[in-house]
Amino acid sequence: MTKTNTGNFFEDFKIGQVLVHATPRTLTEGDKALYQALFGSRFSLQSSDEVARAAGYKQSPIDDLLSFHVVFGKTVPDISLNAVANLGYADCRFHKPVFPGDTLSTISKVIGLKENSDGATGVVYVRSTGRNQRDEIVLDYVRWVMVRKRDKGSPAPVADVPALPAAVDANSLFAPANTHFKTFDVAASGSAHLWDDYAPGEKIDHVDGVTIEEAEHMMATRLYQNTAKVHFNQFTEGQGRFGRRLIYGGHVISLARALSFNGLANAQLVAGINGGRHVAPCFAGDTVFAWSEILGKMPLEGRADLGALRIRTIATKNLPCAEFPSALEKGYADGVILDLDYWVLMPRR
Amino acid sequence: MTKTNTGNFFEDFKIGQVLVHATPRTLTEGDKALYQALFGSRFSLQSSDEVARAAGYKQSPIDDLLSFHVVFGKTVPDISLNAVANLGYADCRFHKPVFPGDTLSTISKVIGLKENSDGATGVVYVRSTGRNQRDEIVLDYVRWVMVRKRDKGSPAPVADVPALPAAVDANSLFAPANTHFKTFDVAASGSAHLWDDYAPGEKIDHVDGVTIEEAEHMMATRLYQNTAKVHFNQFTEGQGRFGRRLIYGGHVISLARALSFNGLANAQLVAGINGGRHVAPCFAGDTVFAWSEILGKMPLEGRADLGALRIRTIATKNLPCAEFPSALEKGYADGVILDLDYWVLMPRR
Amino acid sequence: MTKTNTGNFFEDFKIGQVLVHATPRTLTEGDKALYQALFGSRFSLQSSDEVARAAGYKQSPIDDLLSFHVVFGKTVPDISLNAVANLGYADCRFHKPVFPGDTLSTISKVIGLKENSDGATGVVYVRSTGRNQRDEIVLDYVRWVMVRKRDKGSPAPVADVPALPAAVDANSLFAPANTHFKTFDVAASGSAHLWDDYAPGEKIDHVDGVTIEEAEHMMATRLYQNTAKVHFNQFTEGQGRFGRRLIYGGHVISLARALSFNGLANAQLVAGINGGRHVAPCFAGDTVFAWSEILGKMPLEGRADLGALRIRTIATKNLPCAEFPSALEKGYADGVILDLDYWVLMPRR
Repeated sequence: MTKTNTGNFFEDFKIGQVLVHATPRTLTEGDKALYQALFGSRFSLQSSDEVARAAGYKQSPIDDLLSFHVVFGKTVPDISLNAVANLGYADCRFHKPVFPGDTLSTISKVIGLKENSDGATGVVYVRSTGRNQRDEIVLDYVRWVMVRKRDKGSPAPVADVPALPAAVDANSLFAPANTHFKTFDVAASGSAHLWDDYAPGEKIDHVDGVTIEEAEHMMATRLYQNTAKVHFNQFTEGQGRFGRRLIYGGHVISLARALSFNGLANAQLVAGINGGRHVAPCFAGDTVFAWSEILGKMPLEGRADLGALRIRTIATKNLPCAEFPSALEKGYADGVILDLDYWVLMPRR
Repeated sequence: MTKTNTGNFFEDFKIGQVLVHATPRTLTEGDKALYQALFGSRFSLQSSDEVARAAGYKQSPIDDLLSFHVVFGKTVPDISLNAVANLGYADCRFHKPVFPGDTLSTISKVIGLKENSDGATGVVYVRSTGRNQRDEIVLDYVRWVMVRKRDKGSPAPVADVPALPAAVDANSLFAPANTHFKTFDVAASGSAHLWDDYAPGEKIDHVDGVTIEEAEHMMATRLYQNTAKVHFNQFTEGQGRFGRRLIYGGHVISLARALSFNGLANAQLVAGINGGRHVAPCFAGDTVFAWSEILGKMPLEGRADLGALRIRTIATKNLPCAEFPSALEKGYADGVILDLDYWVLMPRR
Repeated sequence: MTKTNTGNFFEDFKIGQVLVHATPRTLTEGDKALYQALFGSRFSLQSSDEVARAAGYKQSPIDDLLSFHVVFGKTVPDISLNAVANLGYADCRFHKPVFPGDTLSTISKVIGLKENSDGATGVVYVRSTGRNQRDEIVLDYVRWVMVRKRDKGSPAPVADVPALPAAVDANSLFAPANTHFKTFDVAASGSAHLWDDYAPGEKIDHVDGVTIEEAEHMMATRLYQNTAKVHFNQFTEGQGRFGRRLIYGGHVISLARALSFNGLANAQLVAGINGGRHVAPCFAGDTVFAWSEILGKMPLEGRADLGALRIRTIATKNLPCAEFPSALEKGYADGVILDLDYWVLMPRR
């Protein structure tokens, strides 16, 4: 019996199955600094212990998306080593802040299975849950992924596709306990525009563009212990579909979030991800731009200091976003690479 | 009204105006490690907690230039987003050591304005001051930068050019309080050459060369939250003046300082910057070399253990420095990219 | 007298000579994070404070090879600045765990000298010892390196070649004191295969491949303060033997070790290095693969919870290892770049 991990194939997944993923990971100030160097985020809460303490935190928390990538990374060896494509995310909520010194682990539960008509692949739906060392949930989400069958002849399971919400109910979002943003410092955050100032339908071009290098996306993806082969191996990928290494979709999400600072500087926390699509692949040398539309806004019960904004951020490659390139009637405008729908929490006046 | 930052134009600056810059930044062991990985410095005080404690510090301090870059980075969105060129630095002093856990913020005061004869640009002089979380000044400096006018037709302000010292007065330099370098370990530092051993006029070729990669300068510049567009966006820069991304001038300063270890291994602290000129642009793929000349030396009042050396370090690209390429009667020798005049503190015998 | 370090030449080394190397280095969480980002290791003990505490450690230790590279890096300015080639390592043992906050220093003792028949170079054998701030040995090893003579005419020393063990005696390996792996969590570590499950002669293809970028190997090598010129200077190397920068051999060792997780996930600690040969150079753009053979296994006296496995890991470039490319009767199969023989400690059933 081989001691190397060959990953699970479609037949290996059963509804209700629980996968305990390997490699708990302690996040530290070192991870914070690397995330800073790789994405250049400027949200003041994640940048400054002083800003965080003024809001009631013990220190500056880990960027929500860094925690997401680490929780996600652990699922790769068990869920998506034999994946053809990562199809989507939904129903992601961030439950608790993560601080340097916290150790994250992930388990996943299979909640849906559907073989494709080609008989060679199927779609696996899992709910993955990241917990800290106190066994508290820090975030959870559903993703679905197309996975190869080991054997085309093996019988198809009964199709079972879970009902997923189009968006996370704003009333179910978690505002960080014991925090207070009423006196939030907008000189420190870089923008006087608070939750009250955004309106549904508003579109914001984030203006700036950032070119990605091979070293950068590989360092980021290794930081998360994400082992998907397509990101690292030019020898094999050079002979493959694209002729080159594919950048982890989460890298584009983090870049788009960092770019969104320019226009959304007070969007301090990501509270939920309603859905995300990697519309087209991204490669080293591509320059990523982004724009956002405010999809909705909701007060948070019991919090006069924070409100939720639902945002759709579109990222493009090699295409500035002054004209808001987006979904077409069928498909997407050329150059669009990410369509992300998420909730942020922003201080109120 | 747009929520994105379009930056200030020449008309937006007024003499005496104070700009409170965004995004306080807590520096950590993570930033120290990244700075180490990016520049490879070997000064023992910044490398070892034990060396630092033996000299009276609570732990190894943050590299002075890392603090400088972070303080500088904060000014970019307000001062130089519409800059044509960064013209110079002067009168920079390092007041207090910065340690992991300290949070830096920056304010700038406009101290000079002069419209250029083309009517399209003007020079803005600011004094920028970086403070820690106890509101103590950690460093301050003057820089002047050529900024575009929003409207060529707008009236010119009365020209007001501040008098700047040719060099920081050595008597005004800050030696770190409660430290003692009398028993400084020269086996640990890598050189027996102390302050007493350097003489004005002495020239030192630092010998080594280091090639810069795109991923490196972008990671460094993002670490400082410096958002100047020219460093990051190949899509736009590819169509611009140089056809490529421009490396942040401070990256060359840090590389030259790290290279200067070979010949100046006991130049443990940067105490002041008298002036700096980025003579020519630097790009990924360029190999940086450096040499230094001792311009002067001064004892420090009340400190028998430390002396100040005034150093001029010239950095070049793709040009070894055995022949000390430098300023010509008019301009600089081909290949020179940096001319930096600064004070260091070095242990005495 | 020049203040720059020109390094020692063959004539400068004497049997019994002790070299105290410069630049003590405090390792931190920042170094751990960078090592993670650069190599993507997944061994659970170095990844999680919780896993480490469950095994009796105070926190997650620094990766053994990161400590090795830092200890090694300090020797370069004194031992190998004028080296033609690094010929081999032997008799390396890891004595004590290293934790964030520990400060490492290195001394070397010259234990062998032999001039080459060309009269222009000689081989220098040194035992280098890394110690922490409590003066405890953390690791030691022998390496031998071919060094240029300053003057071809200078007389040859009496040849004195030390006897070196073909392998470290398993009985002399150090198991970490006050640790207990009897209840080691194999769900967290990612593999149920423990020491009991490996047999001498067993071969494991580690399957995955990782492409190296210039920025990555330079950042890693600077992190160790290794100043060997060939890794950093494209201007000079572009005119040299290979036309490009040479990757530090230790970079390949660390990559191979990280790749070996896939098949050796419970090889939590490197306890000794019996020998290592850099068979061929490695350059940016190369994709590294690896496979391992179990050479032997030994129980550890007094430890029912840990056993030692002797492993030979072969790394290749641009050559997948399904067919276990290795040593030929004469030389090595094309594509082999590293032949490493080492001891790991693995939890027992």
